[in-house]
Amino acid sequence: MADATDTAPLDEETFEEREANLRARLLDAQFDMAEAKTETLLVLINGPDGSGKGEVLYRLHEWLDPRGITTMAYDIEDADESRRPGGWRYWRDMPERGRIGLVLGSWYHVMLLRRATGALDRDAFLHVIDQVNRVEAMLAAENVRVLKLWLDLPADKAFRRFRSKRDVDGERRPLLREWGEIDTKKERRRLVEAAAELDHAPGAADAPWHRIPAGDRRARDLAVGELVLGALRAAPPRLKTARPRPPTAPRRVSRGPSILGALDLDQSLPKKKYRKRLRAAQSRIYELTRRKSFEGRALTCVFEGNDAAGKGGAIRRLRAALDPIRSDVHPVAAPTNEALAHPWLWRFWLNVPEHGNTAIFDRSWYGRVLVERVEGYAARVDWSRAYEEINDFEHLLTGAGQIVHKFWLSISPEEQLARFEARQDTPHKRFKITDDDWRNRAKWPLYAAAVEDMVALTSKPAAPWTLIEANDKCFARVKVLETVADRLEAEL
Amino acid sequence: MADATDTAPLDEETFEEREANLRARLLDAQFDMAEAKTETLLVLINGPDGSGKGEVLYRLHEWLDPRGITTMAYDIEDADESRRPGGWRYWRDMPERGRIGLVLGSWYHVMLLRRATGALDRDAFLHVIDQVNRVEAMLAAENVRVLKLWLDLPADKAFRRFRSKRDVDGERRPLLREWGEIDTKKERRRLVEAAAELDHAPGAADAPWHRIPAGDRRARDLAVGELVLGALRAAPPRLKTARPRPPTAPRRVSRGPSILGALDLDQSLPKKKYRKRLRAAQSRIYELTRRKSFEGRALTCVFEGNDAAGKGGAIRRLRAALDPIRSDVHPVAAPTNEALAHPWLWRFWLNVPEHGNTAIFDRSWYGRVLVERVEGYAARVDWSRAYEEINDFEHLLTGAGQIVHKFWLSISPEEQLARFEARQDTPHKRFKITDDDWRNRAKWPLYAAAVEDMVALTSKPAAPWTLIEANDKCFARVKVLETVADRLEAEL
Repeated sequence: MADATDTAPLDEETFEEREANLRARLLDAQFDMAEAKTETLLVLINGPDGSGKGEVLYRLHEWLDPRGITTMAYDIEDADESRRPGGWRYWRDMPERGRIGLVLGSWYHVMLLRRATGALDRDAFLHVIDQVNRVEAMLAAENVRVLKLWLDLPADKAFRRFRSKRDVDGERRPLLREWGEIDTKKERRRLVEAAAELDHAPGAADAPWHRIPAGDRRARDLAVGELVLGALRAAPPRLKTARPRPPTAPRRVSRGPSILGALDLDQSLPKKKYRKRLRAAQSRIYELTRRKSFEGRALTCVFEGNDAAGKGGAIRRLRAALDPIRSDVHPVAAPTNEALAHPWLWRFWLNVPEHGNTAIFDRSWYGRVLVERVEGYAARVDWSRAYEEINDFEHLLTGAGQIVHKFWLSISPEEQLARFEARQDTPHKRFKITDDDWRNRAKWPLYAAAVEDMVALTSKPAAPWTLIEANDKCFARVKVLETVADRLEAEL
Repeated sequence: MADATDTAPLDEETFEEREANLRARLLDAQFDMAEAKTETLLVLINGPDGSGKGEVLYRLHEWLDPRGITTMAYDIEDADESRRPGGWRYWRDMPERGRIGLVLGSWYHVMLLRRATGALDRDAFLHVIDQVNRVEAMLAAENVRVLKLWLDLPADKAFRRFRSKRDVDGERRPLLREWGEIDTKKERRRLVEAAAELDHAPGAADAPWHRIPAGDRRARDLAVGELVLGALRAAPPRLKTARPRPPTAPRRVSRGPSILGALDLDQSLPKKKYRKRLRAAQSRIYELTRRKSFEGRALTCVFEGNDAAGKGGAIRRLRAALDPIRSDVHPVAAPTNEALAHPWLWRFWLNVPEHGNTAIFDRSWYGRVLVERVEGYAARVDWSRAYEEINDFEHLLTGAGQIVHKFWLSISPEEQLARFEARQDTPHKRFKITDDDWRNRAKWPLYAAAVEDMVALTSKPAAPWTLIEANDKCFARVKVLETVADRLEAEL
């Protein structure tokens, strides 16, 4: 950890002088940041209990404009979090660009406790750090700056300070549950040692920890304030903006033979067989999602496909087999302004299903590497990194016990044309089509290349793509539902 | 309840024929509604367990486009709800305009259970109905249509049906906890009787209940579908749009002497006394909000005032006395598009503090009767009803144990001019002022009339306004903090 020099105690007069000066600069910098709205700053306040995490939080609230601050404080135990993939609560509370999040109980807090009590050995600890590094790299690319503070106090001194504090009712009430979990002197020492290990972990050089001597409260707070100021004043990132561009020649970024070309789109199913097999698959899904073993799992289904490929019809049949209280369909359209003020995956995190539930995405995060890529709404550098970001995201879901399955519904250009024309002719308004549909159709080869890349780069054993031959709606629906049923059966 | 005729069982063939026809009309009507985005439809599915509430829910999901449906299903026990004012969860999940909410476990569900078990006597029951009627009238004015369905089945028949159902693990799992709460035959009968009482309750004529014979499942579902269709097809409401208008002569709607005129704005406090009293008040607030007795309460503070009256400074001093983890500052600006797609109070409901917490609103729902009234963003008919809507809203907060206090910070036009000019001259960007501020200043008399009305019409013993003479910032801050401290002391 950087900045590990010790400081002499500060007298009140010197402190007040420096404080007044610092505070004016902090407000100024915060105002600029709020006005620019280009990035989010997360300040992770870590340290052993007794080092003054709560005091630092108070102080920053006093110095900064509290209207621009989001307090993100978490206990180890958290019912909301425990029913969802790790880190969900940080996503839920992620401040939008222009705001500062002060984080007590950050992702490191839980890791360090588990390391200190021996729940994580060194290898497992390094593995978790690696995962965290990947998430933080993604946050950095999305203009979320993370300032990591460690309030540095020897374990024994921190414990004495912690023990001497009593709240007004005469009870000890730590801000975060920590010493409650950590009982022995040895574990307390190991917590501080584990924090030091973070320095030498891979990736530590990119986003260093700042170690702040916490012996003198005034010097500690001024040091924190200067670091926050530095983070606010660091050169603001470039904000990439959407810039639609004309179609160019399709170019794949992945290798290997064409996946779409190998499909026999015309497979079909007679009406009578369709009805029977659809009902059978629905019954299986109904039964499987009501099993006790599903209580600790969750199902996430993603539907992508050509326009008019029949996503809606397939989703309706799937939904009919699920408990309506424990399932949701999330139609995904262009991001709102609120979504644009957050990292791009944020809006999908909000809809991650909790244990025992099902989330069906009608279009999804794959829009990033489909429409946003093809139409130029995302810069090349951004959609290129999205494949790995998506894999990391889905890895977190499956790691938390979720069953993730993705469907691409594929129809031929001829079939699409026939369906477009049929829609235009029918008075049933619901099926009317828009100019966008025709425009997208003109970019068929571009979309095809994007689909090939998407499937090649994001199909994983735990989160596979299934391609659905969808020229015949009955065949497509039955294949979707039987795939879901088979997958559930294999997993439960 | 209306529609209480019995129906003959339907054979499958007739059912399928009618179903196909009904379904096409439903989808069509739903599509029109989604496109118009002028109103929200809430379908309350009520009835004794065994009457088929869950089956109806499934059926509506099958018939309608599930992408436009929000399932709102609630248990009686709900940790989120129990820590907040009654009805909070319905606000949290309120679908935006253009969407349909299917509600299982509606507000009536809880009321009826409490009536059946004797927890509510007839008078208390009527009182709750009156409260609910007021909320529903407000929802109607905000384009939320409420369709109330009662699936009608004699208590004993419903119970037999309920008992005969087993889920796949062989366990009885009711969709909502009901028979679990209701044990005796007598209580089951009283539940159905209580539902009948709703017919004769005051206000029932405005938003009638629809009683649907639930003996035959097919006939029941078709009847429900027709009612939903009717609700979708009812004449769409007028959507009021913002239309800024030129200032006119100020006119109060309330009576009585001027409240603002009676203030001595120039009261002041010397710096030394200020520091001492501010610290003392902060200590008292710190101590009071940490008491055990605050755990079951909450504090909501509203700050309104002239531009440049010093709201921010007062809020910062108050905030510094509060546990940062258990308090939030909510700056209120013009509503987002998402907020505009919901009833106007919705965005404030989302920020209602839970037990043990404090919410500070920097501007608030009173914008409705201040800036929206003066600038014409709300039509007269809408801001006129807002006074009673606000009183009802705050009554729900205080009824749930919340301590509500509202501050108007008042400065003289001369003092405002001096502050504006000082701000313009200082290089400190944070204090720069906008053209809007100058424009608002030109409408001083209009705002003054609106403030007089606001205070006269919404100051209640449990949710009072305190006017703060704010020409001297020190005096103003101390008065705010001492008022909060005194109020907390009186309440806890």
